[in-house]
Amino acid sequence: MVRVPGFIVAGVHSGLKKGDALDLALIVGDGPCTAAGVFTTNLVKAAPVILDIDHLNANADRIRAVVINSGCANACTGQQGLDNALATAALVADKIGCRAEEILVLSTGVIGVQLAMDKIRSGIERAAAALGNDWDAAARAIMTTDTRPKLENVEFKGEDGRVYAVTGIAKGAGMIAPNMATMLAVIVTDFPLDVSQAQTILKKSADRSFNRIVVDGDMSTNDTVLLLANRPESNVVSDADLRAFEQACCEVCTQLARQIVRDGEGATKFITVNITGASDDAAARTIGMAVATSPLVKTAFYGNDANWGRVVAAAGRAGVPVNPDRMGLWITPGQNEQVTSQSLQLFWGGMPAEYAEADAATIMQSSEISLLLECGKGEGQAVVWTCDLSHDYVSINGSYRS
Amino acid sequence: MVRVPGFIVAGVHSGLKKGDALDLALIVGDGPCTAAGVFTTNLVKAAPVILDIDHLNANADRIRAVVINSGCANACTGQQGLDNALATAALVADKIGCRAEEILVLSTGVIGVQLAMDKIRSGIERAAAALGNDWDAAARAIMTTDTRPKLENVEFKGEDGRVYAVTGIAKGAGMIAPNMATMLAVIVTDFPLDVSQAQTILKKSADRSFNRIVVDGDMSTNDTVLLLANRPESNVVSDADLRAFEQACCEVCTQLARQIVRDGEGATKFITVNITGASDDAAARTIGMAVATSPLVKTAFYGNDANWGRVVAAAGRAGVPVNPDRMGLWITPGQNEQVTSQSLQLFWGGMPAEYAEADAATIMQSSEISLLLECGKGEGQAVVWTCDLSHDYVSINGSYRS
Repeated sequence: MVRVPGFIVAGVHSGLKKGDALDLALIVGDGPCTAAGVFTTNLVKAAPVILDIDHLNANADRIRAVVINSGCANACTGQQGLDNALATAALVADKIGCRAEEILVLSTGVIGVQLAMDKIRSGIERAAAALGNDWDAAARAIMTTDTRPKLENVEFKGEDGRVYAVTGIAKGAGMIAPNMATMLAVIVTDFPLDVSQAQTILKKSADRSFNRIVVDGDMSTNDTVLLLANRPESNVVSDADLRAFEQACCEVCTQLARQIVRDGEGATKFITVNITGASDDAAARTIGMAVATSPLVKTAFYGNDANWGRVVAAAGRAGVPVNPDRMGLWITPGQNEQVTSQSLQLFWGGMPAEYAEADAATIMQSSEISLLLECGKGEGQAVVWTCDLSHDYVSINGSYRS
Repeated sequence: MVRVPGFIVAGVHSGLKKGDALDLALIVGDGPCTAAGVFTTNLVKAAPVILDIDHLNANADRIRAVVINSGCANACTGQQGLDNALATAALVADKIGCRAEEILVLSTGVIGVQLAMDKIRSGIERAAAALGNDWDAAARAIMTTDTRPKLENVEFKGEDGRVYAVTGIAKGAGMIAPNMATMLAVIVTDFPLDVSQAQTILKKSADRSFNRIVVDGDMSTNDTVLLLANRPESNVVSDADLRAFEQACCEVCTQLARQIVRDGEGATKFITVNITGASDDAAARTIGMAVATSPLVKTAFYGNDANWGRVVAAAGRAGVPVNPDRMGLWITPGQNEQVTSQSLQLFWGGMPAEYAEADAATIMQSSEISLLLECGKGEGQAVVWTCDLSHDYVSINGSYRS
């Protein structure tokens, strides 16, 4: 059972989703929390994103709670959408006894539909009454096309022996893209942080995790990752403890990001894309993203086809330097960031390597496959995670609103 | 029956493809031709692309023939691939009685496999013996996953009353991407052009046609568009005639580009994406490409779902300015570049417009649909053509090599 000292949560059914599916989550701190946020870079921002940026600008040292609904993104909803986001914050503030400006709001679901405020109101009533330690219910309540909840919990020990918790929930299965996978995540901790520490570490953690995953290359209007730390008053931490927290936060984000890829819409395979030999790390990430986003690469994985030419072609059009005559490609079963004894070399020095197609086919049938692409240009490296593109992706997204 | 004075063609079976499918085309001018080329910007260039760039640099005023094979891309094949491309040119040169440097070579098919030179040799024998006016066979011989040949013929009258022909064949159904659809096209004309005129007009025509279509956002190692004009000696043309040729060339390229989208792998719908109100025309094209490439937009079209939020979200992440509060979106059945009386407004001023979902669904069921997205930012405009993303795209690309 996950339990973070000083945070209580709930996940309930408000009626925004059909049947009795959970669709509203509430996360409440026992006092003012330090908060940080990383948001979509999409120019079309959903109402809750605009609201949260405002609230964090003014109150990042005293956020009290986060309320999240699924079933409606409250995006492209104009002034009424902004009014509804603020009204949602006010309903939660009223329950907890704080100001609306101390509440953060997240929404996910269909774009262009106004929030049904009567359902939000009764959902918040129900959630406030159910607050406890059911993190699983909270994780379920924020799902859209996700097939399973995403919850991650890491503990670490400070220098004085005290144990801290870092716990996160996330959702996201489609619209997973370069620059903020289209997704929501909330991470909470009882480790004491000030606003600047929280923002720096959250940004770094998101860059190493959520910004390294691809499902389909789309980017939503609602992408948000939040971090809440509920012991701001005791913020006298050593550098070593801060580093330990950073590591734990990064681990939680990375595990959640991997869970999102694993649960990618229609995904049947988890693919680790390792890029080495790029001109620098940023170029390596650009190449990794081009490979991980390519529909031709993703369908080849779905079809168990070691069509390495598509990987090389995707790298060649990424817009950063590669040296075709010194490129190489290996595939390995499992999640590997390096070439192992099980790796098979498919391509080397601008030419097909000598290998048996049957060996390649065996590896391609694994549910976890790693690519290593050497670009022959420099020392830059990056790892990106992606999934295959299947018939089910098309089915899910062809009929999402039906 | 298509007939271009001074050009003879053939399409034959060489054995590179299974069964008796045509897989080798030959286009021969009756004398030295002015030639121009536009090539893939992929850093990983196929052997024939490297060869053609060389041959055009040295001999753009005296190219004699183009040989094209399908079934093998001769890409990622190293020095042997280059040797084979040159040997192919030499075999054709031998038949015609010219130098290998006066021949252009195109290849399309699987990456990373060496050309079977015995098959190329016998195919060239057969093609040389079959030269005539069967443009349809030539168009068929360059197909890969295309389901139908792409041939376009336009005639125009010069000021002196003489009639000129502009004829093109193309292939391409997947890997159709921003910046050169992954495709091959060869355009020939009996209109007299010099090298600089040919290159300028071909570049302009490709920018307005092949560089405006999207099937899947991938870009191949082999993309090439060639233009051959076989009356260089009579190059004294009026400005009016040159403009008439440019218009005809652009028309041939545009029609071929549309045929490629229509025949996009698994495509069931032809979608015209009109962008208006961007900060400039280049920004409009960037937004159009982001919309036309988005898997979420493309699957929504496949599913007859007027999920306009995905269009707006794709525009918002395109990386160029939009004004969310002044954006608008209309859908119209058919191929339209403007709002008509049949258009339905879905979105306006940052908010959903008032419309009946049933009306939207009716339009979305059309086999041809036009979007018009107003970005509220300036005067920039662009038109881009794309298709939907279907189950069949996944099937075709999951098992391409099987």
